[in-house]
Amino acid sequence: MYNLKSLNSGVCSADGFFADGISAGLKPDGALDMAFIYSDTPCDIASVFTTNKMAAAPIKHFQAKGDFQTNFVLINSKNANAMTGQAGVKDIDEIMGEFSDKLNPIMSSTGVIGVRLPKEKLINGTKLFDITQKNPSNAAKAIMTTDSFSKECAYKVELDDGSGFSIGAMAKGAGMINPAMATMLCFITTDADVEASEMQEILDEATKTTFNAASVDGDTSTNDTVLILANKKSGAYNKEAFADALHKIMLFLAREMVRDGEGATKLVTYNVTGAKNDAEAEVAAKALSDSLLMKTALYGEDPNWGRIASTIGASGITSDEMSLKISFDNLCVYDKGEVFFDEEMEKKAATVMTHQKFTIHCDLGIASGSFKAYGCDLGYEYVKINADYRT
Amino acid sequence: MYNLKSLNSGVCSADGFFADGISAGLKPDGALDMAFIYSDTPCDIASVFTTNKMAAAPIKHFQAKGDFQTNFVLINSKNANAMTGQAGVKDIDEIMGEFSDKLNPIMSSTGVIGVRLPKEKLINGTKLFDITQKNPSNAAKAIMTTDSFSKECAYKVELDDGSGFSIGAMAKGAGMINPAMATMLCFITTDADVEASEMQEILDEATKTTFNAASVDGDTSTNDTVLILANKKSGAYNKEAFADALHKIMLFLAREMVRDGEGATKLVTYNVTGAKNDAEAEVAAKALSDSLLMKTALYGEDPNWGRIASTIGASGITSDEMSLKISFDNLCVYDKGEVFFDEEMEKKAATVMTHQKFTIHCDLGIASGSFKAYGCDLGYEYVKINADYRT
Repeated sequence: MYNLKSLNSGVCSADGFFADGISAGLKPDGALDMAFIYSDTPCDIASVFTTNKMAAAPIKHFQAKGDFQTNFVLINSKNANAMTGQAGVKDIDEIMGEFSDKLNPIMSSTGVIGVRLPKEKLINGTKLFDITQKNPSNAAKAIMTTDSFSKECAYKVELDDGSGFSIGAMAKGAGMINPAMATMLCFITTDADVEASEMQEILDEATKTTFNAASVDGDTSTNDTVLILANKKSGAYNKEAFADALHKIMLFLAREMVRDGEGATKLVTYNVTGAKNDAEAEVAAKALSDSLLMKTALYGEDPNWGRIASTIGASGITSDEMSLKISFDNLCVYDKGEVFFDEEMEKKAATVMTHQKFTIHCDLGIASGSFKAYGCDLGYEYVKINADYRT
Repeated sequence: MYNLKSLNSGVCSADGFFADGISAGLKPDGALDMAFIYSDTPCDIASVFTTNKMAAAPIKHFQAKGDFQTNFVLINSKNANAMTGQAGVKDIDEIMGEFSDKLNPIMSSTGVIGVRLPKEKLINGTKLFDITQKNPSNAAKAIMTTDSFSKECAYKVELDDGSGFSIGAMAKGAGMINPAMATMLCFITTDADVEASEMQEILDEATKTTFNAASVDGDTSTNDTVLILANKKSGAYNKEAFADALHKIMLFLAREMVRDGEGATKLVTYNVTGAKNDAEAEVAAKALSDSLLMKTALYGEDPNWGRIASTIGASGITSDEMSLKISFDNLCVYDKGEVFFDEEMEKKAATVMTHQKFTIHCDLGIASGSFKAYGCDLGYEYVKINADYRT
């Protein structure tokens, strides 16, 4: 057994980690736009990157190295260093020249695609770094793009034998819609004594039901990145506890990203059960969270259950109107061919939809496959944000 | 050889076809909401239906019959007769009892999901039908839902031997987004002496590059239907001419639907060339026409070519930033790693985007696969229409 203690902190929660954010002049008005994470001992790495074929230069730079340890990550916002070819990769080498005293420094970027990094600004910025600082919230702010708030989460894990370790994280992303421009980045640090390949396995598993359940329209960004750095300083580890804490952190951050979806006002859980298998439940749940028609109905607080049925039907999975059941929270509006949707019921369902968080539950009534996806609404503000992102 | 003559008409263009629209009181203010198509001799049928697993009652009713001939189609708007179970199918039988003198009458519906048909209104409405009428534009108006204009198209085909035939059509659908509620319906009539299985083959082929190239987010409606009725009265036929005319009609109607996309102001052709094969080009072209980020950038007239590259990369097809070329009409902004996008170029590209119709051309530079998809923008009006469709 073990005990999880939520900490009000971020990437400096684990022993030996330092972080800060500074202003390199990429964002206007001196806003924080460049961050570092430093560990005073070498770290093993676990990673998940975008599947986008146009993966950005920082990802190519990382992947070219094969297996390695590191003690330093540099992150900038405002420029994604994507679609910049080999030149973009060379730019990273040049900037990393400033950190020749560090072990295999990693760079990560988010922002506009197709523009070369402003190298001089970045290099001047790196001179402001003080690696003795522990300002995780500055780092979390520096990596924001269209985010309206910064995202941090940390747990102290207390094991039964009195030992323990910590996991801390920061993330950026305001993309329910996973926009090409609103890349999802997440950096996790831990002093758990976890073995690298097991850490990768746990990360891959946790990604499926957290960041990949919140990602929406397949419009995967060129820069999406999740990194875990483990410096093992605590000497303590327990697989179950580590996996549990990591999943909680990633789920919290994924839901925070959805809640911060561009222009979003609601966080909806699409709970699909009774599917032929988990994979089919996932297809249906993601089809619902992706659907423009669902998103606009959520915005209009219109309990349009016909759209839910139609979206499931269109998703191609095994489904049948005579075994389907649809509920808004605990309010069942359709059950195996029976419609409970008079004027009073419609009012009640519309009331559920006024809440900031609620669940749409679809029981397919076929077998026991299930999946939860997280979605938000789409309103005028989303159109405004995305109609002219670059200005 | 043959000659195609565009006619300013619809489903009564071919010999022996009659049609009209009447008001059965489903829409407010006496608007036309029910239509018929009648042929004075039996017709062979070719059809394409939605792949949605929750296919509406009219589709189940049709498909239960196996192969058959018909001379009558009844169409209503405002109610989709979807998610209505076996009761919905029985409702059709009951209404069709009014047409016991007709040969296997077909029913087709579009509108709100999950509500039983107002049978009495419909049956009273059918009594207003006069099958000697040729008012195709009334029929085209009666089948509209969120459409802002009715859609008709017809060709007279003149063959070299002096013989000829006609093909006429009407369609409804304002769903670039293929909304569950803005079902796509298309009815085509012809007096060509075409054999049923060949007609089906030609229809299947034409659907791929027309209605299926305009359909967008996979949110296939419960009611999507394309029907061709052929009464063969002309005694004339030529496969090439028939296929050509049919394709022209379907492409015109598909593009009209996109142009009438809910709240849309632009009709964009996504021309993907140089793909590994046609199937991969289709995936990329549809990913672009589906992308929320593309749609909002179109609305904002923001020539954000980075989103184009990212969307292609995310679509999973074979692509490489070092072989990709992106143009707005003839204006190349990115070519195999080279970016032509200074301030002047950006202004020029933004000017292309102010046009009501333009082409975004992506040459993947890999092999010779190609596909054209048709998309529109997404603005405030779309959100407004869909936030509360049912009221």
